[in-house]
Amino acid sequence: MIAIGIDLGGTNIKAALVDREKGIVKQLSIPTEAELGRDHTMARIAEAVTLIAAQSDEKPVGVGIGSPGAMSMDRRWVSYPPNLKGWKDEPLSEEVHKRTGFDCLVENDANVAALGSSRFGIGKQFASFILLTLGTGVGGGIIIDGNLYRGTTGAAAELGHIIIDYHGPISNSVTRGGLEAYIGQRFLSRYAADVILQYVDNPLYKEFNQRWDDLEPKDLSMAAEAGNSVAIQILQSAGEKLGYAIVNYVHILDIRKIIVSGGVAKAGHWILEPAYKTALSRLMPPFHKDFEILYEPMGNDAALLGAASMAFEFLA
Amino acid sequence: MIAIGIDLGGTNIKAALVDREKGIVKQLSIPTEAELGRDHTMARIAEAVTLIAAQSDEKPVGVGIGSPGAMSMDRRWVSYPPNLKGWKDEPLSEEVHKRTGFDCLVENDANVAALGSSRFGIGKQFASFILLTLGTGVGGGIIIDGNLYRGTTGAAAELGHIIIDYHGPISNSVTRGGLEAYIGQRFLSRYAADVILQYVDNPLYKEFNQRWDDLEPKDLSMAAEAGNSVAIQILQSAGEKLGYAIVNYVHILDIRKIIVSGGVAKAGHWILEPAYKTALSRLMPPFHKDFEILYEPMGNDAALLGAASMAFEFLA
Repeated sequence: MIAIGIDLGGTNIKAALVDREKGIVKQLSIPTEAELGRDHTMARIAEAVTLIAAQSDEKPVGVGIGSPGAMSMDRRWVSYPPNLKGWKDEPLSEEVHKRTGFDCLVENDANVAALGSSRFGIGKQFASFILLTLGTGVGGGIIIDGNLYRGTTGAAAELGHIIIDYHGPISNSVTRGGLEAYIGQRFLSRYAADVILQYVDNPLYKEFNQRWDDLEPKDLSMAAEAGNSVAIQILQSAGEKLGYAIVNYVHILDIRKIIVSGGVAKAGHWILEPAYKTALSRLMPPFHKDFEILYEPMGNDAALLGAASMAFEFLA
Repeated sequence: MIAIGIDLGGTNIKAALVDREKGIVKQLSIPTEAELGRDHTMARIAEAVTLIAAQSDEKPVGVGIGSPGAMSMDRRWVSYPPNLKGWKDEPLSEEVHKRTGFDCLVENDANVAALGSSRFGIGKQFASFILLTLGTGVGGGIIIDGNLYRGTTGAAAELGHIIIDYHGPISNSVTRGGLEAYIGQRFLSRYAADVILQYVDNPLYKEFNQRWDDLEPKDLSMAAEAGNSVAIQILQSAGEKLGYAIVNYVHILDIRKIIVSGGVAKAGHWILEPAYKTALSRLMPPFHKDFEILYEPMGNDAALLGAASMAFEFLA
């Protein structure tokens, strides 16, 4: 069985042909051109669908889309996705159907990543887990007994907007001191710059001064590998913040498998070890057993696979 | 149909005969005498069961117990309940059965309060809600689609141990800056003392100096009603902390009905209004619709009713 998975981003639209057994068999990426407005972006999504469908010998059962923003409970509408200019409450499923003939469902991008990990990735081994996408934004998806937990309106698992310090810094949100304000990629780079500016002899200062936005988690972890103690300290601080947020997820949900993915997670054990240690130090003892933080190595593919899984499970 | 509900506390054991239609028909309370150790407390629980059963014309279908501590997933074991001296991992259901002949299930005290609100209280009108018990400790229960959400091991909804400030104060827990450290009754009294000590002319100073532990939320709300601005400020600060924690619950669970009960909740709108305002100011806009904080007026009866409901639903 074949389905089409779409990962709708503010910069690129990724599309994949997914085989239910084999996973991704083909994929492509085209620019979103979000700056050209709502109708243009709709047309671009349809184009990605049509282009990838043309590469399939078998008729796909439908299209699943992972999108930023909040979704309707019936998975057909998207509300005010950040980074998509001019989008309000939009009947995305219908727009895709109209233009391509395919049935289509849409789900939050972090939610489809969780679904992808559950069906094709490291999450496969767990009935219940929490997935965190650590990128420019910080998102999450919660799998309970094999199903995506969606809440009463489909908006559940805004795991980047969990307060860990109510008088903390602000992110792209009204939620001051939320996790994203510490480890969202932009905020982490800004924090790193703040720290590194105090160490003008540090190789990272020399490399990134005046262009701090280019500093990526990977640069910090490479520096850490090379023994750069300032980089180690920055990643440790970020990992600790992640640990506090994880305490909140675990104390509420009693789900002890935390899977992380995304660009920031690529800083690997430099972030994840302090996160683990911090979480353990603040988790109540009954929650220690089986507590684990794991890395989902599939990266972006998780979203494409999860989006297609929606089509397999609800449109076939 | 009749069942027995038990509310097992460190000071008293409350027992009720509950009619599935009519609610509580009879109840009694005996001292726990927890200081006399594990076996004695087991015997006291059995005594409460036997005493209340003797008052029923109809044979109860079983016993449900709301207990502090963590429960096993099969609702038969209790682990290390705080305030019960000498208790480790205990087969409470079996101990009660052995002594009384009744089938018995045990569940966390805040969880049974949520179940009680769902079956007999203000929660009846909602398929999904979050219940907070604001007392000496702060506990919680989560009802999703009419069922108690228990997590992977039965320990879910430790809602008092949600971090809102990772460098904040400590409570009876390893979780620094958790909600309980601000609005658990003892901590709230201590905070109130800290503030009131700066106002030696305040009537609350005159009344409670040297005996701050006697200062209850009700005293603060009565003072607030009388226009005492220091009391208003203390309750507002407590309400704000509650609001931050609620943001975390709602962003994770996408459940917008928050029901509060317990002694601290009796301070009423002086706490709940700042909680509501603060939560709204930090909740992402898609979560504002239908967001509500409600008060459960049943008080302790909720736990007794919820405990008995377990018996109706799983033992009848």
